[in-house]
Amino acid sequence: MDDYEKRKLKDLVQSEMELSLKTLYAYLRLPSISAQHSAIPETVAFVCDKIESLGGETKVLDDLGGNPVIYGYFPAGEKENTGKTLLFYDHYDVQPPEPLDEWHSKPFEPYRNDGILYARGTADNKGSLIQRLSAVKILQQEGDLPCNVKFLIEGEEEIGSPSLTPYLRKYKDLFKADACIWEFGSKDAEERVNLYAGIKGSAYFELSVKSAAIDIHSSLAACIDNPAWRLVQALSSMKNQNNDILVEGFFDEIEEPGEDLKKIVHHLPFDKASYEKLFGLKRPLITEARGEDPRDALMLYPTMTICGVVSGYTGAGAKTVLPKEARAKLDCRMVPGQTGEYLYKCIKRHLERHGFSDVKVELTESQNAFRSDISDPFVQLVKTTAEEAYQTGTVLYPNSAGTGPMYLFNECLHLPIVSTGVGWADSKAHAPNESIRIKDYVDGTLHMVYLLKEFAET
Amino acid sequence: MDDYEKRKLKDLVQSEMELSLKTLYAYLRLPSISAQHSAIPETVAFVCDKIESLGGETKVLDDLGGNPVIYGYFPAGEKENTGKTLLFYDHYDVQPPEPLDEWHSKPFEPYRNDGILYARGTADNKGSLIQRLSAVKILQQEGDLPCNVKFLIEGEEEIGSPSLTPYLRKYKDLFKADACIWEFGSKDAEERVNLYAGIKGSAYFELSVKSAAIDIHSSLAACIDNPAWRLVQALSSMKNQNNDILVEGFFDEIEEPGEDLKKIVHHLPFDKASYEKLFGLKRPLITEARGEDPRDALMLYPTMTICGVVSGYTGAGAKTVLPKEARAKLDCRMVPGQTGEYLYKCIKRHLERHGFSDVKVELTESQNAFRSDISDPFVQLVKTTAEEAYQTGTVLYPNSAGTGPMYLFNECLHLPIVSTGVGWADSKAHAPNESIRIKDYVDGTLHMVYLLKEFAET
Repeated sequence: MDDYEKRKLKDLVQSEMELSLKTLYAYLRLPSISAQHSAIPETVAFVCDKIESLGGETKVLDDLGGNPVIYGYFPAGEKENTGKTLLFYDHYDVQPPEPLDEWHSKPFEPYRNDGILYARGTADNKGSLIQRLSAVKILQQEGDLPCNVKFLIEGEEEIGSPSLTPYLRKYKDLFKADACIWEFGSKDAEERVNLYAGIKGSAYFELSVKSAAIDIHSSLAACIDNPAWRLVQALSSMKNQNNDILVEGFFDEIEEPGEDLKKIVHHLPFDKASYEKLFGLKRPLITEARGEDPRDALMLYPTMTICGVVSGYTGAGAKTVLPKEARAKLDCRMVPGQTGEYLYKCIKRHLERHGFSDVKVELTESQNAFRSDISDPFVQLVKTTAEEAYQTGTVLYPNSAGTGPMYLFNECLHLPIVSTGVGWADSKAHAPNESIRIKDYVDGTLHMVYLLKEFAET
Repeated sequence: MDDYEKRKLKDLVQSEMELSLKTLYAYLRLPSISAQHSAIPETVAFVCDKIESLGGETKVLDDLGGNPVIYGYFPAGEKENTGKTLLFYDHYDVQPPEPLDEWHSKPFEPYRNDGILYARGTADNKGSLIQRLSAVKILQQEGDLPCNVKFLIEGEEEIGSPSLTPYLRKYKDLFKADACIWEFGSKDAEERVNLYAGIKGSAYFELSVKSAAIDIHSSLAACIDNPAWRLVQALSSMKNQNNDILVEGFFDEIEEPGEDLKKIVHHLPFDKASYEKLFGLKRPLITEARGEDPRDALMLYPTMTICGVVSGYTGAGAKTVLPKEARAKLDCRMVPGQTGEYLYKCIKRHLERHGFSDVKVELTESQNAFRSDISDPFVQLVKTTAEEAYQTGTVLYPNSAGTGPMYLFNECLHLPIVSTGVGWADSKAHAPNESIRIKDYVDGTLHMVYLLKEFAET
């Protein structure tokens, strides 16, 4: 691309933005919360309509259970067709909006203020999908789409993509492509575009203890067992105060990272102060107490996180009750080599060995970790086009600390995968007041336009 | 009383019951939940109206903060006046009804089925108040009220009576009496009327850990501290798997029970099978694992109970969030000698010593334990009149495992106190589907009639 063409594309992006954001607002208004089975059919219809209105082909895949998987296809224009195909992976579902009282605006009513757009799903990942569709439209307007573009848009990413495996295995020919752009990414606090050539895995567990059929007056706790104490003690046996994971075998399957990878990780930026400011942290980083490099922890080590715990009365004031049950949600971020099934066995065995066979454990979701070859030309192309479009630096991470079904994509489609998206450092994905910045939305659309253009020529 | 008089009183009770229950239904419909500041003024007005409609005098004491304390007074009739005064202690507030989805009928709409009356507050303690007022009415109808009757009806019993102390201290002359009937009691699974000559204390604590200003994506748990793990570990340091309370100094203040008391305790009935059946217990009693007598644990030992714990996402499905805070509610049932203030110091010191100075602890309520002299004639009178009215056996407990402001009453009024009430073994006080049986309601009313009659003559 010469400078004239770049400027022309930039102008086209600018003039498309009003309509693009209008489409995004309508998309954000759909409360498509997979964890709560909310608004799925209407969201599928919305997404298909948007693809078809740009002349794309759609298929709603729903023959294998779970929320439908949307296939979208835009063939390259005849003039410029190089036969290459880029696959976009997105998801139309979002995280639950709770806790609701901490939102400053309604989670499913887009609110724009001072260049920032607030709503659940703006950053993760409704903004990126509409941006990508706008990029296709702009290239159609400019002349011809320079390569084939496919979309895989699923509806269960936020609950761990439990139904995706059979769809991808059955329809792998349909989704065949040369490279894949993943669903998420953001600028960091130093305004660098962060790109990810891999992903951590995740295994999600539900733990529960039931000790009675009904809640009981707490005076009887003198002789009747308390499921909250049982759960607290069971959890406490799994991780100590120093944040060592104590579950026997937890680390056994990990593929030892090579020296090259460790070197890349140690050169990644890490700005503790920006974390502290963004999240209002009240405690030192746990890696400090452990004498570890937080970059190692984020990239190369697994985690074990209590995402939720509940028992008994949790409202205002005092209720003197002996609860009948206690429950916890546990998220283990995995690194390459680890599997949820094995961690499940480890946790179950640990609980039994430590006298907690009454604590029930269930593996509710599991996805393996994945890392692309960081030296692949596609990986580098995503990076250089980002620098051109955003006019800022980039940071290419070997893998993100977050998760998704990348392992499965590579298993079925054998392609390099890079993740990039429309977020910023304060996007608050998964938390109240999720947001994106309009300027990033515009630059990110241009990034996708440049990428499609240059990808066709590689 | 001769048999003729007893029969006459019994007939009067029977003919009053329809009206008495109608009054109770109206009282139960008021959702007077002190923990949620619900329906307090209308409930105070309702209770005063009922007392005044029987010719009683009322005073609404509200000059010292908190929910109003109601004083009710019925002077003895001129014919029979022996100058003696009996004080009834009741409360117009109830426990929160949650969890709502476990109620088979609406918690604040009385539902009568197969001789059982369901609603929040039936057993604890709205049924007993209306019963006691009916007893006064019946004795007025029969001739003259044989002794002075006073009522102290407070509105914060279910949150630990935090405002009662100044009222009782200021108005102790107003509430002066010779003996006191306390607010609760029930039949046990063997249909014996259980009476209590004392009470355990209670200290209620709120523990909280805050580690960030906002909820964070759980991938960052690799380096950011988790308040749920902190709280779980802190709690776990306070009580071990064998249910030993590990807080240093926790047992230091306890008055060693005398041999006489221990003997009485060891002769109390205890039916493990009925506990297991009533509550659907899924685990052995904790006293079994500890090789202890559950009667000792209930009567003579303190407890430490998690009444509630919450952090992060607790809804359906998975949410991969690193919570910003975690909270727990802790109820310690105390025995004579212990004070909430001292236990607070012990817990605070324990947390600091064990590396949990980030775990905030707050003492939100505290009431000392109390035991009446079990050989007092009034204590025996309550027992013998119960046997006459209910025509069943009784069990007189030196103290209940539950709690209430008895210590304070004795400190201000210096009188013997016995607790009796309208519950049955399956009343489910503090839990969903709270209930009483109509037959117990009738017999219990007769018990109060007999007691007032005989008390006047002692």
